Amino acid sequence: MGDPSGVGGEITLGSWRRRNSALPPFFLVGDPDWLNRLARHLGLDVPIQAIGRPAEAMKAFQDALPVLPLPLAVPPTPGRPDPANTPMVKQAIERAVDLVTSGEASAVVTNPISKTILHQAGFPYPGHTEFLAHLADSPTRPVMMLACPVLRVVPVTIHVSLRDAIAMLTKDIIVETAAITAESLSRDFSIANPRLAVAGLNPHAGEDGAMGHEDREIVWPAVTALRARGVDAFGPMPPDTMFTDAARKVYDAAICMYHDQGLIPMKTLGFDKGVNMTLGLPFVRTSPDHGTAFDIAGTGRASPHSLMEALKLANVMATARQRRPEGA
Amino acid sequence: MGDPSGVGGEITLGSWRRRNSALPPFFLVGDPDWLNRLARHLGLDVPIQAIGRPAEAMKAFQDALPVLPLPLAVPPTPGRPDPANTPMVKQAIERAVDLVTSGEASAVVTNPISKTILHQAGFPYPGHTEFLAHLADSPTRPVMMLACPVLRVVPVTIHVSLRDAIAMLTKDIIVETAAITAESLSRDFSIANPRLAVAGLNPHAGEDGAMGHEDREIVWPAVTALRARGVDAFGPMPPDTMFTDAARKVYDAAICMYHDQGLIPMKTLGFDKGVNMTLGLPFVRTSPDHGTAFDIAGTGRASPHSLMEALKLANVMATARQRRPEGA
Repeated sequence: MGDPSGVGGEITLGSWRRRNSALPPFFLVGDPDWLNRLARHLGLDVPIQAIGRPAEAMKAFQDALPVLPLPLAVPPTPGRPDPANTPMVKQAIERAVDLVTSGEASAVVTNPISKTILHQAGFPYPGHTEFLAHLADSPTRPVMMLACPVLRVVPVTIHVSLRDAIAMLTKDIIVETAAITAESLSRDFSIANPRLAVAGLNPHAGEDGAMGHEDREIVWPAVTALRARGVDAFGPMPPDTMFTDAARKVYDAAICMYHDQGLIPMKTLGFDKGVNMTLGLPFVRTSPDHGTAFDIAGTGRASPHSLMEALKLANVMATARQRRPEGA
Repeated sequence: MGDPSGVGGEITLGSWRRRNSALPPFFLVGDPDWLNRLARHLGLDVPIQAIGRPAEAMKAFQDALPVLPLPLAVPPTPGRPDPANTPMVKQAIERAVDLVTSGEASAVVTNPISKTILHQAGFPYPGHTEFLAHLADSPTRPVMMLACPVLRVVPVTIHVSLRDAIAMLTKDIIVETAAITAESLSRDFSIANPRLAVAGLNPHAGEDGAMGHEDREIVWPAVTALRARGVDAFGPMPPDTMFTDAARKVYDAAICMYHDQGLIPMKTLGFDKGVNMTLGLPFVRTSPDHGTAFDIAGTGRASPHSLMEALKLANVMATARQRRPEGA
């Protein structure tokens, strides 16, 4: 569901309307009344069908958008999040994790939530990623990957200040992030020998220490350790030249030293085709690569493309995992 | 000239061979014997004509590459910089600045130099930009702008570690950099009311202080001060979404908080079309947006496109300045 006053509802309606053979069947965990009202408000002819179990979604999907009911406390107003509905935002995520854990669903795709609203309601997690890791009770640290048709990036830290990102940079965090990434590329993306480009932290990757020592003292040892473990990693790469058309051809994912080092090229190259996913969880989880967009919620202007890409990618990853179960 | 063992010679030959009405006439400050040998080595039919004064270049240019002689100490080997030639690398820059200061040339375009080699020879400047500012005896701090057909970026600091870039970030440095940029856009690019997007430092521009305080405490006051001075600046902008196709349409230049924040999108979007230029000097100076490329020097594989763009842009800027002299 995501935040029901954000664009999650309308991009879900929009994705269903564009359903075709490339888009896997999906269902929404949310309030059928809310979706019916939203469809009418936007003038969209989308029949909503409440389902009792996920299995019913397969049959229903061609003719209606299947919804597993989770009633909201109050009818949402687009663009104006209501704290009364915050518990349901959280419950929708928990329900989705239950269903994927029990095997009733193949993957979790999350619509955008507002961290500010959740935090005001006492939600202690920085975002979806950390909450999902908690629900999954996973021993590995969750890792965020962003993918668009021409690039995959994995930042070693996410939602911290740039100053803190530098302070948190260690050989171990790079090695752990890259190892989880390599494992997921081979398990979820069927890439036999994934090749990872590891970015430097500083301009020109430090230019032999002339512009910072982290590249030599942290990033380089991490690359060496990864190679010793059999991971095909190379770097530290000068950050400004590693995302050109030619440079991107030689790697399957870029391991980035901070949030914007990865997200600037990702969003510059593939703005509305980006998909966010969490690696290192026992189930597949993707999401569109944008926020609640409260400023345009309810106008029908939000593009469903990123959600559609997230649904397709979840299907690709879940299919790859079924063919090659975890640990195999 | 740049470093004669880098790709500067061959991209100059290549640019001359592609001369057309869009490319302004130019001459090289360098060694005619070196260029003759290089042209033969590459199998290029480029007549070299030594000239006594810059004015002769205009007439010579259609039939030969004009060269203002500056003899090298030893014949350069491609890819292997020789310290014996380092004094001439420096002299070529000084000569170019003399010629543009006296009005005999319209602009300086610099071929790539190797900072490492120059530093070993006791050259005390971090790069071209700082040496040119010294020669120009300019009261304003030189500012580096990079431009490609779809983007202009100006980082407030350049060749320092990321950690130092954060430590050096002040309201004043942002205001000064943006003001010099706005002035140059109007004087050199004939943009009547330049609009500047000022990037935030932290992910999501700090998200109200949740991810760092610099955006609120440094960047925001800088934007306010710029607006009070009549500069049409806005920000702090979330760094990851400000370089998308749609976002770029609403500004003439992006003021960036560190090197890679500006150079990643620049090189990702316009790899071999990028031009580097120095604003805040009393003369026009541009350069190709790449280095000496010692690894491919002498092979003829280096693309002359960035140098050609640098020559064209120098012409545009010099023409705009002539139409509207400094201070007018």
